[in-house]
Amino acid sequence: MPKSKSPRYVIGVDLGGTNIVVGAMTEDGASDLGTRSEPTRSDQGADAVVERIVRMIELAITEAMAATGAKRAHFVGVGVGAPGPLDRARGVVLTTPNLGWQNFPLRDAISERVQLPVKLDNDANCATLGEWWLGAAKGGRNVVGMTIGTGIGGGLILDGRLYHVSSDIAGEIGHTTIDVTGRRCKCGNYGCLEAYASGPSIAERAREAMHGEHDSIMYTLVDGEMERLTAAIVYDAAKKGDGTALEVVRETARFLGAGIANLLNIFNPDVVVIAGGVTQAGETLFDPLRREVRKRAFAAAVAACRIVPGSLPGNAGVVGAVASFNQQTRGVA
Amino acid sequence: MPKSKSPRYVIGVDLGGTNIVVGAMTEDGASDLGTRSEPTRSDQGADAVVERIVRMIELAITEAMAATGAKRAHFVGVGVGAPGPLDRARGVVLTTPNLGWQNFPLRDAISERVQLPVKLDNDANCATLGEWWLGAAKGGRNVVGMTIGTGIGGGLILDGRLYHVSSDIAGEIGHTTIDVTGRRCKCGNYGCLEAYASGPSIAERAREAMHGEHDSIMYTLVDGEMERLTAAIVYDAAKKGDGTALEVVRETARFLGAGIANLLNIFNPDVVVIAGGVTQAGETLFDPLRREVRKRAFAAAVAACRIVPGSLPGNAGVVGAVASFNQQTRGVA
Repeated sequence: MPKSKSPRYVIGVDLGGTNIVVGAMTEDGASDLGTRSEPTRSDQGADAVVERIVRMIELAITEAMAATGAKRAHFVGVGVGAPGPLDRARGVVLTTPNLGWQNFPLRDAISERVQLPVKLDNDANCATLGEWWLGAAKGGRNVVGMTIGTGIGGGLILDGRLYHVSSDIAGEIGHTTIDVTGRRCKCGNYGCLEAYASGPSIAERAREAMHGEHDSIMYTLVDGEMERLTAAIVYDAAKKGDGTALEVVRETARFLGAGIANLLNIFNPDVVVIAGGVTQAGETLFDPLRREVRKRAFAAAVAACRIVPGSLPGNAGVVGAVASFNQQTRGVA
Repeated sequence: MPKSKSPRYVIGVDLGGTNIVVGAMTEDGASDLGTRSEPTRSDQGADAVVERIVRMIELAITEAMAATGAKRAHFVGVGVGAPGPLDRARGVVLTTPNLGWQNFPLRDAISERVQLPVKLDNDANCATLGEWWLGAAKGGRNVVGMTIGTGIGGGLILDGRLYHVSSDIAGEIGHTTIDVTGRRCKCGNYGCLEAYASGPSIAERAREAMHGEHDSIMYTLVDGEMERLTAAIVYDAAKKGDGTALEVVRETARFLGAGIANLLNIFNPDVVVIAGGVTQAGETLFDPLRREVRKRAFAAAVAACRIVPGSLPGNAGVVGAVASFNQQTRGVA
């Protein structure tokens, strides 16, 4: 296959606290060659994590070459979504509690090893970009993206562009106050959305709701070991009709609904796309969530907006890292 | 004076529920010829209000011509800031409880009478634009503007452009929830920022804080007629050292601080500019407000942002209406 006939490829890397996901895509997004996931194991230190990322990138390139007949020269770069805050211009991860890194020059560490240009972006921005480019938020002009898992991250597409600010705090939707005198959040503040609606917070509220009693099936699902209760188990129990779990999910919907209504009244977006573990709850969560938003936001803002689960589960971060590489390199998604 | 030597002038109109303020400015903002204010008297009906606006515009033109030697032909248009939501493209005020209007074609009603092009914009957007163009938010790239008076309005400058959405709800900062189980707001929702920190809400909280007792000087300031208590009187009493009034102002600062911290975590702005009656409270309010924001927002977002009172009191709306006319006509402020 002559070189000029092959499409160009970009590698996307989604670096999370738990897993690293890497995949190759054509630069135009038309062809996705699949992803590979490995545990991050940040306890082994930054160098070992970089080593793992580099190996996964090389593997993705080798596999993509075998599958498509592309040459190494057709791989034009690597986009990396990493937990923030970041200094994008210098390619540095400033601080990230999940990985325990401080001022780590991730971009250059990868770039030197793979001999390709590398671009960094915030993981929540990448997930939003991914859903906007190829997923559930496609076609939106003003998009709020939320990723709800261990924490609650956010990304904003405003007037058709990813909203970026130099100090890289924008989109910290999880740390907006919905209850000034409310629960203490691990950020130190009181009443943050994340203190109610992140995965661990949902599990904690479920433990509280059970009042030490054993009549919920959640108790059986964790064999009586309450510390094993996770948000996923709460959703599972709710789908099975467990009353306590259902009430916890409905309450979660009310908290999330208040936070999302705030975003509707501030931005008037056309799409709110929600990704992460919370989407496993399905309509048990989305139905009361949309109802709460309708109660709290202006009717015109509600009418203008669809609130949808992401359509690229497990993949939005990689797709978005590729989109971010494209944007930072060529100014387009 | 030959026609080509005169600068071009734009008339700005700030239409409020209580007053109409009208002024003439050079198109480039370099020269402001002062403003005139008259009561709106919306009870007389929309036609009478339009009549008043038209007369005030004609007067502003006549006075400006007398003061500068400009000819009528040097007046190129009129910018109008009106309570929203609006349909800017059609120049229609969709609904405004303060004036009692529904689907009123304000732009054409004025334009037909003064024979000049007229552009409408939301009053909160205009106030923000005014402070950004010539006031305290000058030079900001991402600016949150808040006007706190009878209600709480907001306008957003993002990436150096006024953020506008077709359904015109954006910037409704007053109706973001800061306490999910909190006070009922007149919008029907619970726990809106406006239910705590608008002028009437501040007065109401002060009445509650006095518990029917008479030891606060606020009681004396209204001659015992508690229904006469206003936010301005609360600020006045606080400045005089009244303990109850001080606590009400500090509490207001905490509520506003929570709402503003949310905006810092969402937008990471470089300026938050606060206009309206609340600025009369001065440092009694701004000092604890900044402290609360520091407690609640991410350090990097706090470091990147200055929180300032507007520097164009009573005039930001007119200046911003002129800026909005410029933007809508020529694409620049």
